[in-house]
Amino acid sequence: MIVFNFDFYNPTRIIFGKDRLGELDQLVPAGARVLVTYGGGSVKKYGTLDKVKAALGGREVYEFGGIEPNPKYNTLSKAVEVVRENNIDFLLAVGGGSVMDGTKFIAAAAPYKGEPVNLLKIGLSKVKAAIPLGTVVTLPATGSEMNNGCVITHEDKKFPYFSKLLFPQFSILDPTLTFTLPPEQVANGIVDTWVHTCEQYVTYPAEGRLQDRMAEGILQTLIEVGKKTIDNPTDYDARANLVWCATMGLNGLIAVGVPQDWTAHMIGHELTAMFGIDHGKTLAILQPSIWKVLKEHKHAKLLQYAERVWQITGGDEASRIDLAISKTRDFFESLGIKTHLADYNVNADKINDIVKALEKHGLTALSETRKVTLAVSRQILEGAM
Amino acid sequence: MIVFNFDFYNPTRIIFGKDRLGELDQLVPAGARVLVTYGGGSVKKYGTLDKVKAALGGREVYEFGGIEPNPKYNTLSKAVEVVRENNIDFLLAVGGGSVMDGTKFIAAAAPYKGEPVNLLKIGLSKVKAAIPLGTVVTLPATGSEMNNGCVITHEDKKFPYFSKLLFPQFSILDPTLTFTLPPEQVANGIVDTWVHTCEQYVTYPAEGRLQDRMAEGILQTLIEVGKKTIDNPTDYDARANLVWCATMGLNGLIAVGVPQDWTAHMIGHELTAMFGIDHGKTLAILQPSIWKVLKEHKHAKLLQYAERVWQITGGDEASRIDLAISKTRDFFESLGIKTHLADYNVNADKINDIVKALEKHGLTALSETRKVTLAVSRQILEGAM
Repeated sequence: MIVFNFDFYNPTRIIFGKDRLGELDQLVPAGARVLVTYGGGSVKKYGTLDKVKAALGGREVYEFGGIEPNPKYNTLSKAVEVVRENNIDFLLAVGGGSVMDGTKFIAAAAPYKGEPVNLLKIGLSKVKAAIPLGTVVTLPATGSEMNNGCVITHEDKKFPYFSKLLFPQFSILDPTLTFTLPPEQVANGIVDTWVHTCEQYVTYPAEGRLQDRMAEGILQTLIEVGKKTIDNPTDYDARANLVWCATMGLNGLIAVGVPQDWTAHMIGHELTAMFGIDHGKTLAILQPSIWKVLKEHKHAKLLQYAERVWQITGGDEASRIDLAISKTRDFFESLGIKTHLADYNVNADKINDIVKALEKHGLTALSETRKVTLAVSRQILEGAM
Repeated sequence: MIVFNFDFYNPTRIIFGKDRLGELDQLVPAGARVLVTYGGGSVKKYGTLDKVKAALGGREVYEFGGIEPNPKYNTLSKAVEVVRENNIDFLLAVGGGSVMDGTKFIAAAAPYKGEPVNLLKIGLSKVKAAIPLGTVVTLPATGSEMNNGCVITHEDKKFPYFSKLLFPQFSILDPTLTFTLPPEQVANGIVDTWVHTCEQYVTYPAEGRLQDRMAEGILQTLIEVGKKTIDNPTDYDARANLVWCATMGLNGLIAVGVPQDWTAHMIGHELTAMFGIDHGKTLAILQPSIWKVLKEHKHAKLLQYAERVWQITGGDEASRIDLAISKTRDFFESLGIKTHLADYNVNADKINDIVKALEKHGLTALSETRKVTLAVSRQILEGAM
């Protein structure tokens, strides 16, 4: 095995900690025409939006609310009109992954000459310009605050996009802004962070020794603080550690030079699109089953995971791996997340439809080795019942 | 304990892996007037310089060699003249930490209106402009390739500087370019990386859980690959892991939100300036003694270090810490690095002079708690005999 070549570049400025919102005045260009984007309104209810607007004093500030979970192209295209009509030159996303992802799409679509809908097909990697953006994170989960990717939903399909122009210029990570989250959303975020990390780690050995240690460090930290931060939402230290793990889980660092397996996200996207199951929950449903089905391919890394993350060293290798998988499931369940499809009223008679959707979307060779064919996806779904 | 607030920003682009030098053509602006800086000539001897110049084809390329270990202001000021006389607009450092650090100083000093020597006093943090720079790393050690700091020597004192303008635009980390290093230099680099990591980790507990895990990951990786990469310099995987650990050890990530104790570097700089002991070796001499003297202050983190880095869990706490310290010393010695001052012909009668130098340079309250007074530094030096 030879360590893979890699590039790493991440220019997002992180502003982490308590009482940092006032710094927006330094972070957002003076005189900017700002569109503040947000989701369902909790940032209004809990006062975050007012604080943001106060910090932006002196600038022309517009608002666009209502970006839904799994942000939809149709919603975002309305924001694109607002940007164009008002000559907005800075976007400030205040929310979680959906608001941040949606705002990235708006940033790329607004300067695009032509119908934004065309971008759904051609993707964002080739756009020549994007409106600069910053974020204020209110939900630790997706890592969108420190990467250049976004996932947009259109007509029951989720499209993942990347563009070197879409790194946020800055992201404010104030753990106290997340204290008011419902426990269920915190749990979803923990699972999302967990599975992001595993998707860059539980593959095959690639001599990315430090990357592995970092991934294990995120998982160990989530085990230490996960249930604690759900049970005690205002425990600052626990929440702060979760917030930083969520960001580090998908800012590119644990990905350098190692293989990646995004099977859980890819199949999970179909479950969200078809049945409306929360993104984090789809991952909790799929992860244990994926590992059971792929345990021979992932043998070496699952064994390493069992030993280093769960301290499982006794028994034969197969039983160590089985125990690690069941501990993973128990961890998700301990956060209040159900891990079987049937828990979400999706029964075995739906598997055909899910497999058809995967086929329709070209997701016929998933995982780090592209061995997850439709037949393997079917096995995974059967195991997830 | 409440997690510290922090900022993180690091825009350096990393180009990691085999056969990446050709990409200089894309990385360095077309039409740039480039000054390639280097050290004692091994980059000439082993052909790296020729490859660099070939990759820069079409650009006006100047050379400045002879930047010495612990780069001296007097040398660098000559390069500043070359830059000014030839309207250089890009600097490319090809070498190890000294070449990279020296080149950062050149980058800041050349556009400075006034005598560069004045910058030694006022520092670099206030300079308003710097010439953009990139690096090609030939010695994994200092992390200078992915941070905005440098250490410059003038009249037997080492001055550490930082400036937001001095992040390299890019750094090429090709492990094969380091294969020709003498084992002694590799060993020095391993110790430098090790001690950088410890200086951001063995302090007091601060709820930086992931940062701790990452620091431990670097140390564990160095234990795994350190001796291996000295014994088998062309083992690509081992060397690649060392290279990445060296960069990650001082790019700011393990430092976020945690206390830092730079005692070993501060006292070590005096040992280098006074006795010419290699930088890495000064750290190997000081680290074990610092921990012995400060083991009460650092009790909790030393215990964590013993358990997580060296898997020491038996015996009472004091003996676990003692064992961890002696294992640290053994690790340095296993790399061929002597860890006692007397090994370098510095005897107890020199301690007064060293303490006087610390006093003269204002280094009278070192460590994360500023408890390392001159009296404590004396104890550390006595323990390092």
